[in-house]
Amino acid sequence: MQRMVREDFLKKAEGLKPQLVQTVRYPNHIVKIQKDDQGKGHIIEQKNAEALRTITMGKGETICLDFEDHYVGYLTLHISTVGSPPDAPLFMKLKFGENATEITDRAEDYDGWISRSWIQEEYIHVDVFPAVLTLPRRYAMRFLEITVLDTSRKYKIRLDQVSFLSVSAVDASKVPALSYGDALLRRMDQVSIKTLEDCMQDVFEDGPKRDRRLWMGDLRLEAIANYETFRNYDLVKRCLYLFAGSRLENGAVGACLFTEPVIQVDDTYMYDYALFYVAVLLDYYEASGDIQTARELWDVAYRQLEIGVQALDEHFLIGEENQAFLDWKAGLNKQAGAQGVLIYCLRCGIRLADLLGYDVNRMEEWLERAVQAAKDYLWDPKQRLFISGKERQISYASQVWMILAQVWDTETNRELLDRILSLDPEMNMVTPYMNHHFVAACILCGEYERAMQYIRTYWGGMVQEGADTFWELYNPKNKTESPYGSSIINSYCHAWSCTPTYFFRKYEQKWRQQQ
Amino acid sequence: MQRMVREDFLKKAEGLKPQLVQTVRYPNHIVKIQKDDQGKGHIIEQKNAEALRTITMGKGETICLDFEDHYVGYLTLHISTVGSPPDAPLFMKLKFGENATEITDRAEDYDGWISRSWIQEEYIHVDVFPAVLTLPRRYAMRFLEITVLDTSRKYKIRLDQVSFLSVSAVDASKVPALSYGDALLRRMDQVSIKTLEDCMQDVFEDGPKRDRRLWMGDLRLEAIANYETFRNYDLVKRCLYLFAGSRLENGAVGACLFTEPVIQVDDTYMYDYALFYVAVLLDYYEASGDIQTARELWDVAYRQLEIGVQALDEHFLIGEENQAFLDWKAGLNKQAGAQGVLIYCLRCGIRLADLLGYDVNRMEEWLERAVQAAKDYLWDPKQRLFISGKERQISYASQVWMILAQVWDTETNRELLDRILSLDPEMNMVTPYMNHHFVAACILCGEYERAMQYIRTYWGGMVQEGADTFWELYNPKNKTESPYGSSIINSYCHAWSCTPTYFFRKYEQKWRQQQ
Repeated sequence: MQRMVREDFLKKAEGLKPQLVQTVRYPNHIVKIQKDDQGKGHIIEQKNAEALRTITMGKGETICLDFEDHYVGYLTLHISTVGSPPDAPLFMKLKFGENATEITDRAEDYDGWISRSWIQEEYIHVDVFPAVLTLPRRYAMRFLEITVLDTSRKYKIRLDQVSFLSVSAVDASKVPALSYGDALLRRMDQVSIKTLEDCMQDVFEDGPKRDRRLWMGDLRLEAIANYETFRNYDLVKRCLYLFAGSRLENGAVGACLFTEPVIQVDDTYMYDYALFYVAVLLDYYEASGDIQTARELWDVAYRQLEIGVQALDEHFLIGEENQAFLDWKAGLNKQAGAQGVLIYCLRCGIRLADLLGYDVNRMEEWLERAVQAAKDYLWDPKQRLFISGKERQISYASQVWMILAQVWDTETNRELLDRILSLDPEMNMVTPYMNHHFVAACILCGEYERAMQYIRTYWGGMVQEGADTFWELYNPKNKTESPYGSSIINSYCHAWSCTPTYFFRKYEQKWRQQQ
Repeated sequence: MQRMVREDFLKKAEGLKPQLVQTVRYPNHIVKIQKDDQGKGHIIEQKNAEALRTITMGKGETICLDFEDHYVGYLTLHISTVGSPPDAPLFMKLKFGENATEITDRAEDYDGWISRSWIQEEYIHVDVFPAVLTLPRRYAMRFLEITVLDTSRKYKIRLDQVSFLSVSAVDASKVPALSYGDALLRRMDQVSIKTLEDCMQDVFEDGPKRDRRLWMGDLRLEAIANYETFRNYDLVKRCLYLFAGSRLENGAVGACLFTEPVIQVDDTYMYDYALFYVAVLLDYYEASGDIQTARELWDVAYRQLEIGVQALDEHFLIGEENQAFLDWKAGLNKQAGAQGVLIYCLRCGIRLADLLGYDVNRMEEWLERAVQAAKDYLWDPKQRLFISGKERQISYASQVWMILAQVWDTETNRELLDRILSLDPEMNMVTPYMNHHFVAACILCGEYERAMQYIRTYWGGMVQEGADTFWELYNPKNKTESPYGSSIINSYCHAWSCTPTYFFRKYEQKWRQQQ
């Protein structure tokens, strides 16, 4: 594939590379974890990790360490031996779990469609003792299970020290605690911030376990949560320059970027993700006031709108075979949702151009035609719902995006919200990412109480399940659901899930009024 | 345990550390290996390794590379990807085989008593491509099997280059080829030298796959083979100083030494191995003429004889519960063999003291009493065989060591050899190490033709089985025999097996006469 590369942009991004905050973490407890009937792992025994120094491990013995919070970073093991001089290597298996279930699930049983290589486990030989073993790879974890596959009959090992150097571009301890709300609210806020902290590395990652990569959809939500918490504008700026610096051949922003060994746009194009570049740039400008960056990247943003419009048919309607993501919901028809995203981003473009003093006529014309097409072809006046595709599918995603696109006025949108909730179609929402947009739609309609109630139920559900960080996927009705074939591969610290703190802090005055 | 440490000796040994010869090796063929009915692996297909660059590998795909000779060293893989940018790590398994059977055997099936950690396999994740991956551990191998456990649906890998940096303290290409003999003889000579080359590293190792360690029994045979081939006196000298520098509490030389992270004698004492220090020092002096070392280490050697004698009972007889090794033969009673080794080493001590001009009276007295005890208590005059232990066990090992000890004159010894061969007791010999001593006994009796015939049958059998290097274990009657529970753990390049070249070159004139 050909790529459009702008070295000047990439150079700017390189200059904005963060110095990571490094903190040494130690395990708090030695735990025993057991699977329950639903296949979920639970801590059934725990003792102080101080005991580690008194434990020797031989062939077949396993220990599980609990660091009591989620961390991203590098493991170091200090291993000594007990008994005769070690007359054979140590062969051991390490397994890292963001949650307890990953410890009880067996990697060997995984047969899903995405790579087993994401499962965080290592088989390691150690030849010389005492050993200080720092693993070269980065892991995302709370739990570490160490299994001695073999030593020899003449010696056992002892873990003199286990430490984990956690890394992040930011430091959550510097974010003031939420100044209102009950325990659940405050916990959700903490978990949001922890999620964001662990995803903020060299770039905004989607998830530090998987894919460890800069995706546009994740970046957009991370950025707005970051503006309310860490206020690290440079990392957003860096990502904006990265996306602008390595694009697809036609100038479209890719859905994601690889950052190693060199910056390189992936060959995956997503209709909605490319358009969101405009929204991220607008949000960044509004949060930071950095007009220079907004001006410099305007052309890139505008190009995304052009490409988005060029994909429309003669009625100014996007086809149902478009490459929008929207949600992981299987069978979701993406026509109406994509049309909604286009309109949403056209509005962002017009607003940004206005702020920068640029001409908006062309975009205004596109906006008008795109809105009209949505009303003419995607609105079912009898059902008073948006439909999508030839089969006239009715989904949450379609309604939510048409509300966020403000195709109708606020009152109509509010009725639409009521209608979709009472209808509760099978085409529901599966990712926190889509659920975020549902909450945003509630807020846009002025439905603050409904929004808060929804956050309490959905993200609060994850907290009640013991989440230290919010997950890539959560379906309260099917807790082991995964689009990948097994939940062992799911990411349990996922950027697009971090927005409760954004809602709590951005709309603080509204929530305070409600209490 | 307490150790007796002589820093001055260890410092001298450190100064004799060899600079290893490094050579880059490339695979010759891509092969397919299949197990036969006897459980032995065979190459059933091969093509030129040039084809490697045209092969892409995805999930579940395996390739086996044949370097066409045995090497010890470090692997480097140059891996690139084909398809989309790699959106998940590569997870792969590497398996190193000294021979084809190790490739077909499954490590998971191994359940023997020595550590599974010796099986040369690694599970590796690679995150960033193109990757140049140099594995930190050293391997002993001819075959390398690479299995892709997973990549992702979006990419496959290609092996742009596979190289293996072989290391040794010596260079076999500098040893002149055997100047006589037929193809089998010459091949056995080559295989001996290759075995020795691959075992000569920082120290004389027993086997570069396992245990990678300095054992006295192996050192003794390696040293004499080395004097006839590489003539690297410094490496023997280094090992003599190492054994002298870190000893057991009472000054006994340990059965083996660890060299990493520091020089340290193992807590394993073996009656015969400690005594052999005297033999190794004598052999070294006779080969090198280095009188200074012989003088400096004489006290250490003499101490081994003292300890050996102190272990005897009132009749000057060693007990049957002594800690001699002699052979891996299960059930072998070690009384007579150990007595034989003691006598053999007393003779070595007397000869060395004589050469150095030291007093030999004490040793002469010990020798006389030890020989007499052997005659009085271990010789069965009716059977005209040596017996061992209360149960009066008759074994090859007992006769062989009593012949080498020269308890009787040459004529009686020759008759003894005939007698044990015609009796062929169940207590036979299982290691090439014990078989070496049988050949040495034949030669001592002047039975050159018998010795040569035996080498042809025994070591020649390994060559006919396709050996590139001689093995730790070989029983022509039970080819998958292992004292460890499975042949996957056996070492197939083992020092104590390298002596055909010693016999061919040391006794060249004798063999030439026979032709």
